[in-house]
Amino acid sequence: MMMTELPLDQVRTLLAVVDEGTFDAAAAALHVTPSAVSQRVKALEQRTGRVLLVRTKPVRPTESGDVVVRFARQLARLERDALAELGLPGEGEVTPVSVAVNADSLATWFLGALTRVPERERLCFELRREDETRTAELLREGLVMAAVTSSPEAVAGCSVRALGRMRYLAAASPEFVGRCLEGASLRDRLADAPVVTFDRSDDIQDGFLRQLGRGGASPVRHAVPASEGFVEAVVLGLGWGMVPEIQAGTLLREGRLISLAPDRPVDVPLYWQQWKLNSPALAAVAEAVAAAASGSLR
Amino acid sequence: MMMTELPLDQVRTLLAVVDEGTFDAAAAALHVTPSAVSQRVKALEQRTGRVLLVRTKPVRPTESGDVVVRFARQLARLERDALAELGLPGEGEVTPVSVAVNADSLATWFLGALTRVPERERLCFELRREDETRTAELLREGLVMAAVTSSPEAVAGCSVRALGRMRYLAAASPEFVGRCLEGASLRDRLADAPVVTFDRSDDIQDGFLRQLGRGGASPVRHAVPASEGFVEAVVLGLGWGMVPEIQAGTLLREGRLISLAPDRPVDVPLYWQQWKLNSPALAAVAEAVAAAASGSLR
Repeated sequence: MMMTELPLDQVRTLLAVVDEGTFDAAAAALHVTPSAVSQRVKALEQRTGRVLLVRTKPVRPTESGDVVVRFARQLARLERDALAELGLPGEGEVTPVSVAVNADSLATWFLGALTRVPERERLCFELRREDETRTAELLREGLVMAAVTSSPEAVAGCSVRALGRMRYLAAASPEFVGRCLEGASLRDRLADAPVVTFDRSDDIQDGFLRQLGRGGASPVRHAVPASEGFVEAVVLGLGWGMVPEIQAGTLLREGRLISLAPDRPVDVPLYWQQWKLNSPALAAVAEAVAAAASGSLR
Repeated sequence: MMMTELPLDQVRTLLAVVDEGTFDAAAAALHVTPSAVSQRVKALEQRTGRVLLVRTKPVRPTESGDVVVRFARQLARLERDALAELGLPGEGEVTPVSVAVNADSLATWFLGALTRVPERERLCFELRREDETRTAELLREGLVMAAVTSSPEAVAGCSVRALGRMRYLAAASPEFVGRCLEGASLRDRLADAPVVTFDRSDDIQDGFLRQLGRGGASPVRHAVPASEGFVEAVVLGLGWGMVPEIQAGTLLREGRLISLAPDRPVDVPLYWQQWKLNSPALAAVAEAVAAAASGSLR
């Protein structure tokens, strides 16, 4: 079965159900009856021979459903671009651009990129904040059309370009250094000292310690899942942590942070992945992101 | 023989003997008599049909003993992890305190509270960032033991105390005001102007417009799901938005933001909910949070 044989009204209906969460809400959004919505989804499931939706509240697409939803979003995007090119921008339509971006990029260089996108594009940005190792997942699931990610391997149907490397420095407050890191070797002290992490899946601190030849960081781990909050927790002395160089700069100069191992930075390469679509809107965003990244990343 | 059929008290005893070096030391560590230790090790050897310990001083595990010791260590690790996950630390361990907190609190007054918790408590904080309308949900699901929430209704098994009100002001950059909000009445202009929201469930901007007598905000909605990122997006002129008074203060004084309706703030009351547990650690955190909130909230 080819995608092009999918009845587009059914595909659009499926997308509406996923976006609105329920058959009733989708019916209201599409101005049809709930039973029409239900019939279209059922017809699409029969045609594809797959269950596309788990009927929970809100509904969830199945793995096969994800594929159709991604197709539906790309379709919607192409349609809007075509209308815009024809000078028929739907009824006062705005083009939504959904992008998954890691917290540290969002806190440092990313927003500046969005202000570089020419006004005439009439876009609205829907940002999703995710760990850079997981942003590619959102792309794969069709939940976003582009992502800042640490993965150079292209997601199916996507193109990749390198943005540069984000540098992290091991840092702590002067008070913390005096209280917890004096004497002995830094690496032994660090392994026992309280550490600030972003969340449970954040292993950049452990990676740094392994580089120094230690197994991993202390069991006293504070998780502060906000980028500025993370840096503030280190400044406040809750623990040491790997701070993005961009955020550390001023704090180091003001003496509010001390760089613990200036000669041992950790660099995380970042990539831009986006749907392979001939979309002027998406292309404008990609250009702006690449330009902003080249000014801020290494 | 299956590993799961090994009596776990005997396995733990064997590990204690190996770790402590003698039956007597193991008995002291386990708070049982040396003869009980000896009987358990013997019972385990009978059950496995192997000699597990060479009775030297200190004792040494045999090859079979090594297998059981490794199993015992893995078991201990799993148990610690499970206890930590349940918020039930073993002795001498660090007490994890999991708290759900809304992004704006995390970005403003909350971290200061954590530095007020006395050092002797040996806590590690595991923060979860959630919308204040959803933090109570995490409490209900048992994923956190306390939460900063907008809901005054106690979750089952939890106590509630009021923390104060977080004030939000409608604000925009001077450049944005000149470009999008000049002429006509503010409320009509605002309803058509691009707006910055936190995420899809953020309706504080719409609530403000409804207060002014308009249906809701513009279809040009940028979603920036980070607290500082949200404020920066408003400062950069992507749209107007409801900015926490605590974050707006300096920006208003520096002229980087303009307050659009100073006489129409939106106040969000915040509450602290926590498990009804007789936990000194949790009580210390609750005290520190209430003190910090009373200094920053209204």
